Amino acid sequence: MKHTIEFLPDNITVSVDKGENLLSAAAAAGVYIHAYCGGDGVCGKCKVKIDQGDVRSDKANLKQEDWKEGFRLACLSSVESDLVVSIPEMTTKSGKALKRKPKTTRTISARSLDTLIGTWKTDPPVSKLYLELNPPTMDDNVSDMLRVMRGIKQVMPDPREPPYDHPELIKILPRALRESDWKITLLLLRGKYKGESFRIIDVESGNTTSRLYGLAIDIGTTTCSGVLVDLNTGKIIAEASGYNGQISYGEDVISRIIYANRPGGLKALQGKVVNTINTIIEDICREVIISPADISYIMAAGNTVMSHLLLGLDPKYIREAPYVPSVSQFPLTKAADLGIHAHPSVRLFLYPCIASYVGGDIVAGVHACQMAKSEKISLFIDIGTNGEIVVGNQDWMVCAACSAGPAFEGGGIQYGMRASTGAIENFQIHPETYDPMIVTIGRIKPSGICGSGLISIVSELLEAAVIDQQGKFNQSIDHPRIREGRDGWEYVLAWGQDSLIGEDIVITEVDIDNLMRAKGAMYAGYQTLLDSVGLTFADLDRVIMAGNFGAYIDLEKAICIGLLPDVDRDKFYYLGNASMLGCQISLSDVTRFRDRVKVRQLITNLELAENNEFMSYYMASLFLPHTDMSLFPSVEKKLAE
Amino acid sequence: MKHTIEFLPDNITVSVDKGENLLSAAAAAGVYIHAYCGGDGVCGKCKVKIDQGDVRSDKANLKQEDWKEGFRLACLSSVESDLVVSIPEMTTKSGKALKRKPKTTRTISARSLDTLIGTWKTDPPVSKLYLELNPPTMDDNVSDMLRVMRGIKQVMPDPREPPYDHPELIKILPRALRESDWKITLLLLRGKYKGESFRIIDVESGNTTSRLYGLAIDIGTTTCSGVLVDLNTGKIIAEASGYNGQISYGEDVISRIIYANRPGGLKALQGKVVNTINTIIEDICREVIISPADISYIMAAGNTVMSHLLLGLDPKYIREAPYVPSVSQFPLTKAADLGIHAHPSVRLFLYPCIASYVGGDIVAGVHACQMAKSEKISLFIDIGTNGEIVVGNQDWMVCAACSAGPAFEGGGIQYGMRASTGAIENFQIHPETYDPMIVTIGRIKPSGICGSGLISIVSELLEAAVIDQQGKFNQSIDHPRIREGRDGWEYVLAWGQDSLIGEDIVITEVDIDNLMRAKGAMYAGYQTLLDSVGLTFADLDRVIMAGNFGAYIDLEKAICIGLLPDVDRDKFYYLGNASMLGCQISLSDVTRFRDRVKVRQLITNLELAENNEFMSYYMASLFLPHTDMSLFPSVEKKLAE
Repeated sequence: MKHTIEFLPDNITVSVDKGENLLSAAAAAGVYIHAYCGGDGVCGKCKVKIDQGDVRSDKANLKQEDWKEGFRLACLSSVESDLVVSIPEMTTKSGKALKRKPKTTRTISARSLDTLIGTWKTDPPVSKLYLELNPPTMDDNVSDMLRVMRGIKQVMPDPREPPYDHPELIKILPRALRESDWKITLLLLRGKYKGESFRIIDVESGNTTSRLYGLAIDIGTTTCSGVLVDLNTGKIIAEASGYNGQISYGEDVISRIIYANRPGGLKALQGKVVNTINTIIEDICREVIISPADISYIMAAGNTVMSHLLLGLDPKYIREAPYVPSVSQFPLTKAADLGIHAHPSVRLFLYPCIASYVGGDIVAGVHACQMAKSEKISLFIDIGTNGEIVVGNQDWMVCAACSAGPAFEGGGIQYGMRASTGAIENFQIHPETYDPMIVTIGRIKPSGICGSGLISIVSELLEAAVIDQQGKFNQSIDHPRIREGRDGWEYVLAWGQDSLIGEDIVITEVDIDNLMRAKGAMYAGYQTLLDSVGLTFADLDRVIMAGNFGAYIDLEKAICIGLLPDVDRDKFYYLGNASMLGCQISLSDVTRFRDRVKVRQLITNLELAENNEFMSYYMASLFLPHTDMSLFPSVEKKLAE
Repeated sequence: MKHTIEFLPDNITVSVDKGENLLSAAAAAGVYIHAYCGGDGVCGKCKVKIDQGDVRSDKANLKQEDWKEGFRLACLSSVESDLVVSIPEMTTKSGKALKRKPKTTRTISARSLDTLIGTWKTDPPVSKLYLELNPPTMDDNVSDMLRVMRGIKQVMPDPREPPYDHPELIKILPRALRESDWKITLLLLRGKYKGESFRIIDVESGNTTSRLYGLAIDIGTTTCSGVLVDLNTGKIIAEASGYNGQISYGEDVISRIIYANRPGGLKALQGKVVNTINTIIEDICREVIISPADISYIMAAGNTVMSHLLLGLDPKYIREAPYVPSVSQFPLTKAADLGIHAHPSVRLFLYPCIASYVGGDIVAGVHACQMAKSEKISLFIDIGTNGEIVVGNQDWMVCAACSAGPAFEGGGIQYGMRASTGAIENFQIHPETYDPMIVTIGRIKPSGICGSGLISIVSELLEAAVIDQQGKFNQSIDHPRIREGRDGWEYVLAWGQDSLIGEDIVITEVDIDNLMRAKGAMYAGYQTLLDSVGLTFADLDRVIMAGNFGAYIDLEKAICIGLLPDVDRDKFYYLGNASMLGCQISLSDVTRFRDRVKVRQLITNLELAENNEFMSYYMASLFLPHTDMSLFPSVEKKLAE
């Protein structure tokens, strides 16, 4: 259920879910509320007045008279109805009213998302078929399997024979038939390709058609997630995730490749990710009380290195120029052969990769959003340590990977951290007082800065002219939060007493420099790729952000620092975990699944690693937002104000 | 090289291979020579005079003056040139000349055999493809497998991707490519069905196209045989065979099924036959000095029980009415998965079965002789403990199995034995003296009677009226060899001093009765099957005998006892090991291989086990040759003489 909040005095109206935290809602809407402690309720600064409507709130740190007058701490309040909320004016030295920067809401509507990903049927690549067969007689004593085949032919088109490929199935068939008085359920695997006939992959006594589940798995370098889909209804009925167990052997793909080349390393890494998947399966099965044996298909996607490691393929040549993977289309594998706790009949499909650094996760995402089925030209981006970019439409596609470095995941940033509880995820600065509004994940005291927080911070510092377009601090501002620290100039985001770690949390010029390099690599990637097909940003109909990171990026701020192109905001979409979405769709709808072939066939890879054009674009990008401000007209205008 | 022998005084002329034994040649031609000792040279009875030409001979047991006069012992002489040979007349009481029964030669000409099995190309279902690829560059860094695929596309039609199915291949590919400077040989498995594209099943560094071998295996209940085919030339380059190791668990399929149902029995039986195959592979590879890893495909055929046991499938229901096998079309299996010492990529194809007692050996035989490609109506028979019969042409086929009992393999016969050294394989009786002419396998003293010997003996005893058409001895003949023994009346084939076992070797009325039941079952089978399709023997264009036994049967004698139908002798063919022949052809020529599908699709099984018509035909067959003599006009005429 949605509620409307009108923030006064700036008349900014937003629509949020019932129960949403008020501070988070304000932050997302670009409404500045004084807040030091990240939303923990301890600093007591984020006092707002509820003029109309109801909030569920906590009295902590609020005086009795304030409570009576309708003041509430935004960080301790959740939305219960439509609201009108007044933000008290802060007493500033000059007494000026706050400048407000109305924001484009970063949430795209469900309709828009539907447009991209389309609809899908519940017509999965595995299906069950219940047969009641006539028992054999002396006049009709064909083999058990032939009897089953005849039963199939009565309800389905004649398959190419023999549609079974593992002797285990034939071993269990005679007993299954006789135990159940010739009533059995077949598990059928439909062809990966259009026109391919099915295979019988399992047989069960009696009618088990009501139990048919599929598992979608996103194999991330850091996190693996699983989603259980009831293939009779198409509904997601359980989810689980966990860190990729390989993380103990290195945080990024390069360190994993290095580890894989140690004696026993490849086997160890494969074992770790298999264990991670097994834990996800256990968690999911426990949650919905099904047996792992009831999972009949696994669709997975991961980057090229993760895919190689899962299958036990040596990723060595991925790291060495000219960066060649062993294989880009992975064979349909029996999950149990990899050590996954699955029924021996269960196939694991792994989305194909395009190149060493454009993996199956990207293919799954591009597949999910149906870029290859539209005449509209889309820029598909997945921002991260390895940034992946795809441009194209139904007729052509090019892709590239660019090494952005770990800044977006908090790496190389002094107080950088992953997007977990305590990370500053949203930030605003008061343009007069230079005081911060800090919102952390989980609304506790801050312990560091995650990628989306970093973008917010740099963008806000730039707009408030605390830093210049080269990312250097304005040393003329006399403010205790702006100071020269151990590693040069910095801004204090949280004082030690307001931070979880008990020390000042700062952002430094070095941090800003690292972010500039990261966003510069992404932007130079877009430019090089568009150039390669003779297009410009103006030709783009859509910019689609994949990856969880995309969901948390504030569009205006990301454009402000030059991470995203300055195009019509209506063209932006985000898909969330697009890789998982692709797996889910493929699990549910075999027709959509078969569409994936076109995606793989269309995409051509462009190698940026030693590309001169990319290098010069990159150098030109090391500015906020860019040395060529004609590329960022809206930012130029905003900064001029 | 062939030589002509003219036997005098009867003017019987035969054509034999150079080096053929003269006693065997006479026996095969139906020329009676007095011979007691089976061909061992000890009885000294088989003295013949060489009128013209040369023989290589031994002087043993021959007087000097006989030698000078040109006498030789037939059993110790081999043919060196065209010959004219006089058989000395024996001194009989009456002094009458011997009656001769000119024989139809049982050897069919090579041309006739070619007509049946046709020709085949050297275009095997596995092939090797040598590729010299361009190494990857930054501008062209597709995956190793995609590079290989591009190389394939330059020389072959575009396959359905991905044409590889085992991760091991992808694991070895990167190294294979780099070790050999991007020059590799692919092993391609072509589709089992027409229109199916190939799969890459192995990759080797450098050019290994000259090494490509296939193994054909006939998995008999008693004996397993292997033939190694050079798939570059289509030539057979080695052969080996051995007893099926399962024999220690029972001689026939029924005792194997019983054993399989003991705890661990199925696994033990599978292990035994796998060991047998492994020994054949070892023997063959040692002989031609190749590695087992150079064998790239295995085509095998066996009866339904042997096929089930090889794959580890429970044969339990094959034995219980209504006699249902688990499966009739076997999945293409990786040989190594069964424990066979083969490269992991090697597929083992097992000919499909039709019914519990009409197995893949029969399908392979029918496939080899192209019954399903001719409009001529053939009767295909495999005589043995389990007799298999197929009738049909390109439009329809019916088959049946009949349980003939073990008489043809020496079972249930007092001095019965397998067709091995010392077994009486040919026999003639002197119509006046009732003295025998005995030829044994290996021409040593006799130790027993094999199937073909048994047919000879009963036929000769019948023609000489020593027994009547009910198989009973003419007790009025006063001859030491015809006597009442422990188990009733019998004929002494060899006296103790002339036998290897030191005791009299006899044939009894009980033995004859067993043979009558066996041949009666076969004949009733033909009749029932022909009846089922509204045909009679007169409609048959061909009678094709499969199995090694068929090769040793004397047509006239087999017709005489009622085992084979009394049709035009020109219609008879024998294929030898037809099952092996089918495997060999399939190994060499993928087009012929794919034809097998039609064979399987055409054949319908008729169950004789509880068939009333069969039972009445069977009862009518328990006579020599048959109660209905109109079915055997040539025999009727002969017996009347």
